[in-house]
Amino acid sequence: MVYLTRLEHFNAAHKLYNNNWSKEQNEAVFGVCANENWHGHNYDLYVTIKGHPNPDTGFLFDVKELSKLIKQRVIDHLDHKNLNLDVPFLNGQMCSTENLAIAIWKELAPNLPQTVELHCIKLYETPRIYVEYFGG
Amino acid sequence: MVYLTRLEHFNAAHKLYNNNWSKEQNEAVFGVCANENWHGHNYDLYVTIKGHPNPDTGFLFDVKELSKLIKQRVIDHLDHKNLNLDVPFLNGQMCSTENLAIAIWKELAPNLPQTVELHCIKLYETPRIYVEYFGG
Amino acid sequence: MVYLTRLEHFNAAHKLYNNNWSKEQNEAVFGVCANENWHGHNYDLYVTIKGHPNPDTGFLFDVKELSKLIKQRVIDHLDHKNLNLDVPFLNGQMCSTENLAIAIWKELAPNLPQTVELHCIKLYETPRIYVEYFGG
Amino acid sequence: MVYLTRLEHFNAAHKLYNNNWSKEQNEAVFGVCANENWHGHNYDLYVTIKGHPNPDTGFLFDVKELSKLIKQRVIDHLDHKNLNLDVPFLNGQMCSTENLAIAIWKELAPNLPQTVELHCIKLYETPRIYVEYFGG
Amino acid sequence: MVYLTRLEHFNAAHKLYNNNWSKEQNEAVFGVCANENWHGHNYDLYVTIKGHPNPDTGFLFDVKELSKLIKQRVIDHLDHKNLNLDVPFLNGQMCSTENLAIAIWKELAPNLPQTVELHCIKLYETPRIYVEYFGG
Amino acid sequence: MVYLTRLEHFNAAHKLYNNNWSKEQNEAVFGVCANENWHGHNYDLYVTIKGHPNPDTGFLFDVKELSKLIKQRVIDHLDHKNLNLDVPFLNGQMCSTENLAIAIWKELAPNLPQTVELHCIKLYETPRIYVEYFGG
Repeated sequence: MVYLTRLEHFNAAHKLYNNNWSKEQNEAVFGVCANENWHGHNYDLYVTIKGHPNPDTGFLFDVKELSKLIKQRVIDHLDHKNLNLDVPFLNGQMCSTENLAIAIWKELAPNLPQTVELHCIKLYETPRIYVEYFGG
Repeated sequence: MVYLTRLEHFNAAHKLYNNNWSKEQNEAVFGVCANENWHGHNYDLYVTIKGHPNPDTGFLFDVKELSKLIKQRVIDHLDHKNLNLDVPFLNGQMCSTENLAIAIWKELAPNLPQTVELHCIKLYETPRIYVEYFGG
Repeated sequence: MVYLTRLEHFNAAHKLYNNNWSKEQNEAVFGVCANENWHGHNYDLYVTIKGHPNPDTGFLFDVKELSKLIKQRVIDHLDHKNLNLDVPFLNGQMCSTENLAIAIWKELAPNLPQTVELHCIKLYETPRIYVEYFGG
Repeated sequence: MVYLTRLEHFNAAHKLYNNNWSKEQNEAVFGVCANENWHGHNYDLYVTIKGHPNPDTGFLFDVKELSKLIKQRVIDHLDHKNLNLDVPFLNGQMCSTENLAIAIWKELAPNLPQTVELHCIKLYETPRIYVEYFGG
Repeated sequence: MVYLTRLEHFNAAHKLYNNNWSKEQNEAVFGVCANENWHGHNYDLYVTIKGHPNPDTGFLFDVKELSKLIKQRVIDHLDHKNLNLDVPFLNGQMCSTENLAIAIWKELAPNLPQTVELHCIKLYETPRIYVEYFGG
Repeated sequence: MVYLTRLEHFNAAHKLYNNNWSKEQNEAVFGVCANENWHGHNYDLYVTIKGHPNPDTGFLFDVKELSKLIKQRVIDHLDHKNLNLDVPFLNGQMCSTENLAIAIWKELAPNLPQTVELHCIKLYETPRIYVEYFGG
């Protein structure tokens, strides 16, 4: 079993805001992250897949194909977007890094070729904060 | 003459949008950066000052004081903000990295102690794009 | 189960020196790291916790609270300190990165909120050397 | 159980080329990576071992010894080499990052001291692509 | 005057080899870099231009256009190539980082729009070695 | 004119402490940096030289020779040392990054080959603080 990881990037706006709460409660819990005019991040997304290398190519999966798949299923929907407003697959969810990582897993896991399996979504919100999700 | 640099960070939302133009023209010129729902970045800000070290301390300027000054004059006004909406000193300007670097220079240059001079504002919008401004 | 990681920093002096050995034996085993006048490092500390996101916030645990906890329990005791002389919770231990990671685990594990668990302490001594400890 | 990781580097040329295939088929599958005149990379190699720290030293294994071992067994055979032509232990294999990581594992695992075990070979081909191999 | 920098990457094979010298002399001067079977690098290329921001856009020059220009004039000719064999604009030159930076300058300087000027080519051969060229 | 830069590292202990002042005054000015038991850093040292490439080699100066020279003149005297106690060329000086950069310049400038000139010493004390010195 070998693990292959590809790094992709996206830049997006978001806010942390629970619509069931008052503005005051949101500010008390989320602080500056609740700014109603939004803030944003350069997200770094590491996608790790696992499986056995193909003896003819030495590849687990062509990393250029993996990049294309991540782009189509994830990056095109998140890059230069507002995560709270523009992304159908985040609808109705709090836009935390935790939830974003899980949502990205759900977009990618069923769309990988059958010879490999999704192993990990690792998502950096800033260089000092990241979330990992291994499914399940 | 010695140069001292301090790195600070801020996360902000913005869009590239010229209000004198139609939506179509904005999208033609700025592409995804014109998304009316905003996008955002983790900005890295390098502030470089120059001068002569004080013989008693070996310091050009206490870097903790420099950090405090940058925080008060710049970071507190930009971090977790919408650059187009929330920042008086960016009012009426296009929110490009170029203009942002110049505006930061104007906030800092007159507020440094007399023993040092502002040398450079270097601002990363993403790890692959940065702007430098040396005044003048 | 989601994993959340926070990076913190501290700068400290130490030496690798076994007081039960002669100076010669220490130098033979630890080389330049045994310099009796000390040397030092910028340590990078990654703290990873695991658990389930809270549906109201989307948070595993507020990362600002996590940062505060790491600061109180660990960073305030290690930053700008001499690891051999100034740190009660390292008393009587060799100041290797391995032992330091284990000691940091012991300071943090019992002090996390009950909704999360400590998963990993990852400690960089230099950009080319790091230790991971998962407890147990 | 503690995990200790050491980063080493090597620079090498290679091409992705299956000699059982025509030039056209190689170009169709591997694209620019099949350039018959070669291309190359700065590889980053992270070697992780695991075990219990020695109470006298606090060390899992002296990281300078680990570095020397990686140098002798791996780096000296790969650095400034052509991976397809110059490396006996890669003979007859496709020069993918996947296969390279597995081959490095096989060179290192049997040559570590008995007090530690090889845990992971993590190999970056570029800053955006890496492979991990845990043996077995 | 504002300075705008864009980072691009390419991976290439090369060797340091003076064809007017014997193999022995090449090995004496260039060491492992003279390996006749080539070695290679992930090059990081920083292109800095200077000029005045356009008041309508806030841009010195659209960074996506700059990226496209660098790609067409430079990256497409160097990426996944053998610098000694495949690159017309390096013909007959030693493939040092110094010469490569100068050659890239010559490809880019005359092809920029008239509103900006090329300021610097900064080229990393490895994370520990880089060359800067400012023309002239 | 071409500029060539080499990165080297050293790890050292120091404190910021003016022996002409009381302990209280030192703590008031230098804060935690005045800890009498020392603290330390992983320093990153960028040495930039300038000159014209040799037409036979393409080299400004062999970067391996440059590295050897920096090691002999600087790194061997600073690495795993106490900057206040162990370094003759820092004797009697405040151990600020500013003074350290100037002292390194003085060790290197007169010892370079006549075909090149020292251009800049850039010294990182932490990833967020660095000093540059251009002589004069």
